[in-house]
Amino acid sequence: MTEYKSELPRTELDQLGEFGLIDHLTKNIKLVQPSSQLGIGDDAAAIKLKKGLMLVSSDMLMEGIHFDLTYTPLKHLGYKAVAVNISDIAAMNGICSQITVNIGLSNRFSLEAVEELYEGIHLACAHYGCDLVGGDTTSSRAGLVISITAIGAVAPDKLVSRSEAKIHDLICVSGDLGGAYVGLQILEREKKVFLSDSVMKPQLEAYEYIVGRQLKAEARTDVVQWFRDSGIVPTAMIDLSDGLASDLLHICKQSGVGARIYEDKLPIDATTRDVALEFKLNPTTVALHGGEDYELLFTVSQDLHGKVEDQQGISIIGHITDASQGAELASVPGDMVVLEAQGWRHFGSRRIGEQ
Amino acid sequence: MTEYKSELPRTELDQLGEFGLIDHLTKNIKLVQPSSQLGIGDDAAAIKLKKGLMLVSSDMLMEGIHFDLTYTPLKHLGYKAVAVNISDIAAMNGICSQITVNIGLSNRFSLEAVEELYEGIHLACAHYGCDLVGGDTTSSRAGLVISITAIGAVAPDKLVSRSEAKIHDLICVSGDLGGAYVGLQILEREKKVFLSDSVMKPQLEAYEYIVGRQLKAEARTDVVQWFRDSGIVPTAMIDLSDGLASDLLHICKQSGVGARIYEDKLPIDATTRDVALEFKLNPTTVALHGGEDYELLFTVSQDLHGKVEDQQGISIIGHITDASQGAELASVPGDMVVLEAQGWRHFGSRRIGEQ
Repeated sequence: MTEYKSELPRTELDQLGEFGLIDHLTKNIKLVQPSSQLGIGDDAAAIKLKKGLMLVSSDMLMEGIHFDLTYTPLKHLGYKAVAVNISDIAAMNGICSQITVNIGLSNRFSLEAVEELYEGIHLACAHYGCDLVGGDTTSSRAGLVISITAIGAVAPDKLVSRSEAKIHDLICVSGDLGGAYVGLQILEREKKVFLSDSVMKPQLEAYEYIVGRQLKAEARTDVVQWFRDSGIVPTAMIDLSDGLASDLLHICKQSGVGARIYEDKLPIDATTRDVALEFKLNPTTVALHGGEDYELLFTVSQDLHGKVEDQQGISIIGHITDASQGAELASVPGDMVVLEAQGWRHFGSRRIGEQ
Repeated sequence: MTEYKSELPRTELDQLGEFGLIDHLTKNIKLVQPSSQLGIGDDAAAIKLKKGLMLVSSDMLMEGIHFDLTYTPLKHLGYKAVAVNISDIAAMNGICSQITVNIGLSNRFSLEAVEELYEGIHLACAHYGCDLVGGDTTSSRAGLVISITAIGAVAPDKLVSRSEAKIHDLICVSGDLGGAYVGLQILEREKKVFLSDSVMKPQLEAYEYIVGRQLKAEARTDVVQWFRDSGIVPTAMIDLSDGLASDLLHICKQSGVGARIYEDKLPIDATTRDVALEFKLNPTTVALHGGEDYELLFTVSQDLHGKVEDQQGISIIGHITDASQGAELASVPGDMVVLEAQGWRHFGSRRIGEQ
């Protein structure tokens, strides 16, 4: 349970001012993309164009809604904020090349805290090979706000939208499902213990995998690379941010199709399953509605069955059906369960820990 | 003094949920740019590339820091949030083609309020001919947060950065200075009157021009068009968001030069001057440090003197000097005053109405 440690040196942001802070945060940025002609420090970044399609994705993370700094280290948060945007570019079958980062900060944050956040942002940029080319830093009356725009590219014939899934296509997913959600439950539980008795040490060792799924999200750019290497172009794709059911329904709606997935095919890690049961949650429900796994959900033509089946870490979980059949789960006992979106619905209520 | 009127119908955002709200807000968007291949509704927008340089600019506006909804109509706010980003693209001598909009909303806002905000966003897109191609809508515990990324393009030989101003270049500015700042002073004063006696009607008629400068900011894309038409490529350019002094110092620092500007050349509107004096402010100080005018400050080679001098609405206010001379104002009495940045320095304090 890491919170920003108060015994560390503290530099008030007031001492630097806006320009000082921007200078400080950007002085070590090195641009690596040949297309990054002009980065931070002007009115806009300049990116050279060659050919192909540019991709743009944008996400905003708000303190108290999307993250809780009681148990989210700022470095992890910075990394995740970048990774989730790169995941959106990956979900179009594209590669991210540049990001811009807008940050709103209340005076609760010291310079060291902001540096920790940016350390995570820079780490993610280095890991995914993209450049931080611009953004805005401003004060906030509302804690921390992070808004990131990711820019990427894809060849026009490799673009994968949500709207081209066809009947009989295979429905596939990378990795495993529900881990990030049960990881969050563990973090929320340990927070309650910590708040009631701050001497208690959090017990996270046994939960390392699922807590990592929540705190250390990764974009599946390796899956996009595998598509490239093996000549696969999915018919439709989305990254799993809201949960399998909700995200599959996006594909169904936008492609004008139905879907049937099979409960016994859902990839669920053993720890995820155990912890779900510990919390008296059905592991299948967790896999369907957990969200924040940032795995790729994609559909491919049936004739790619062999190629996909042989690939480690990719699961075929069902197939696309006619729109009239809707989206359904074939349960292990043999019932058909209609899939419903259960994304967060409540404006103004907290998303974190929402059941 | 327009605030969102409580007698209008009120639809709670809760009733729609996130996806419902996004659907609602985006259902009428029509893409007009040939390069906008895929807009809102997928993981990322897709923009076709041809040749040239892509420009990306990003800004975040926070309630209570950058705007006060007591006197800022949401429609105006939406318009301005777009215009200031397009202004950043214009400051690179580029044309904006697409924007993404991330919005954070607390449950204080009704659907009607959000619609009013988006009405302004759509109006600005229509006015500047750019497409809204993506973004994120999320809940907020902190009132309204607007984060916009603008994407544009410029031919490589037309790109104007802040870093290429040369000794003897002319320093020019479009429009007039300080209006947005004194407009804000009027709005703040009327707010105080309104808060102490809500029956009092605000007296804004005489201040229409300067209040409009504050609430209805426009990007000077017409100046960029004039550069195109007249074959002018400035050596350096910036848009005036922080104030003439602060923004000129950016050019000096990044170009490694000094600057001398002349007090008697500063374009100040008569209303701006009168209202500054009414508030016991020096009109020159207001012109130097006012900020938010979103005019273009640019430098051009001396041999363009005739072309620039003849252009209505463009003022030549000084020239670039050697770095060793620093940046200075030649005052009307004949003194040399060293220019200092006076942007907002205080993280966590309110920017609005800051003196």
